[in-house]
Amino acid sequence: MTSSDSARTPGGAVVLDGNRLRDEIVVRLAADVAAAGSPPVCLATVLVGDDGPSQRYVRNKHVQAAKAGLQSRNEILPASAGQAQVEDVVGRLAADPTVHGILVQSPLPAGDDPRYDEEAVLRLIPGDKDVDGLTTESMGRLMRGLPGLVGCTPLGVLRLLERYDIPTAGRRAVVIGRSMLVGLPLTVLLARKGIDATVTLAHSRSGDVTALCREADIVVGAAGVARMITASHVKPGATVIDVGISRTEAGIVGDVDFDAVQAVAGAITPMPGGTGPMTIACLLENTLTAARLQGAFPGL
Amino acid sequence: MTSSDSARTPGGAVVLDGNRLRDEIVVRLAADVAAAGSPPVCLATVLVGDDGPSQRYVRNKHVQAAKAGLQSRNEILPASAGQAQVEDVVGRLAADPTVHGILVQSPLPAGDDPRYDEEAVLRLIPGDKDVDGLTTESMGRLMRGLPGLVGCTPLGVLRLLERYDIPTAGRRAVVIGRSMLVGLPLTVLLARKGIDATVTLAHSRSGDVTALCREADIVVGAAGVARMITASHVKPGATVIDVGISRTEAGIVGDVDFDAVQAVAGAITPMPGGTGPMTIACLLENTLTAARLQGAFPGL
Repeated sequence: MTSSDSARTPGGAVVLDGNRLRDEIVVRLAADVAAAGSPPVCLATVLVGDDGPSQRYVRNKHVQAAKAGLQSRNEILPASAGQAQVEDVVGRLAADPTVHGILVQSPLPAGDDPRYDEEAVLRLIPGDKDVDGLTTESMGRLMRGLPGLVGCTPLGVLRLLERYDIPTAGRRAVVIGRSMLVGLPLTVLLARKGIDATVTLAHSRSGDVTALCREADIVVGAAGVARMITASHVKPGATVIDVGISRTEAGIVGDVDFDAVQAVAGAITPMPGGTGPMTIACLLENTLTAARLQGAFPGL
Repeated sequence: MTSSDSARTPGGAVVLDGNRLRDEIVVRLAADVAAAGSPPVCLATVLVGDDGPSQRYVRNKHVQAAKAGLQSRNEILPASAGQAQVEDVVGRLAADPTVHGILVQSPLPAGDDPRYDEEAVLRLIPGDKDVDGLTTESMGRLMRGLPGLVGCTPLGVLRLLERYDIPTAGRRAVVIGRSMLVGLPLTVLLARKGIDATVTLAHSRSGDVTALCREADIVVGAAGVARMITASHVKPGATVIDVGISRTEAGIVGDVDFDAVQAVAGAITPMPGGTGPMTIACLLENTLTAARLQGAFPGL
């Protein structure tokens, strides 16, 4: 993408448009599926309980899956389902050769009774079907550089950097937040051969990270601390990516103080419309990758 | 350890004495085993071929294991052994409840015939017996923060930092080298809750890392580039740890230019006698941890 056809913020930063890239990826995936003779590549989601936001997330995943030419299936269990019932459903999907990707919508319902052992559920998902990239197997493959599935959110960050031609090799990236979902895998991913960033992993015990961030070419906020990244954290021209989510009285807020930072940054993700849609796009990409890892359809 | 009873370099840096700490750890492990009634905790090594250095490494591991009160067993296969034979031996050790830790000495003999699939061999080692911390399962557990076994070399670095009271929380650490054996797991380990360093992972594509290192409280050389870390890389008083190994005409050389750096650093590992002996100490520690993970002996 040349900078001329990218939207800009009032301060002149390139907008890293996650909605646009998600749509591009969906179109590309649909073309890939069609070119392979439209085999029934299937994503299965498992939804336990009736949490409103979880239901919406899952519904959105199915809508986008259909646009990408993917089949999908939603296994719904009541909040009263026990551990054994959840494990039974996931185990059946794991064994089912017509299912290529499995996603257990998290969080599983909280409360003391029933209380779920999420780890035990994840263990049932084979590495080649783990489209969330969350299991021990997937994390281990990422560390060992083996073929496998990478978490949708970190992969989405990488796809944005690639799409907007943000250089990474030899550049300094700072990832703020050491979560298993984002910070840790993204650190490993950005440091990988071929991506080659020099990556700093900062977190809540890092103290003041302003100076650290100011040296970085790429800053990723994944701490879940509302608007912690201000203009003073950002080197002029740097790329700033917001993965943080905080629920405040003013609604959902990211880690980046967008209005201030956009005036300094060279490129920035909007919130919403940045990394959020990319997470879904990468879930669909992972579903196709999963089918390929399984050798499910020749020609795919 | 108070600084008063630590050896110092001519320039005044505390010597991070790996031989001494290894001996302390061996004594402690032997006491732990004795206190549990001397159960037969067993480390099994698998040695394929007749490479001289590999034979010496394995022999040393058995000598130290005996000092730590551990049983050990060495499975020796000829260089002509095929993949199936190696897998058969490892598979039997995996299934044997009297074996608590399994280490396959690497590298397996090179050459086109036989050519080993090391990944397939590693896959046979259960996570709870993986005393090298090398398998996909162990790497995944490290990422997910689950109980498991961490690679001996990164764990050895951590044990040195702990033993010499080098503060890590909120401090900046730079790890140079992104290997699966050292750099990647050490980055994750140092950033973990409870250790809490702000970690930068640098590597061969990072270009000049002098400025980066100069900001660090802890510098770990794990790149395998002879004497790449010079005095100009080190902030006065910083801790410098050498994990690098290069074979030069002058013998085995580390990543750290010891003579120059010791005059600037606050603490430094010698080479030899720094991280090398710690790797063996942590192999033995891991063997005990493995037996505990397996619940092999009550009271251990």
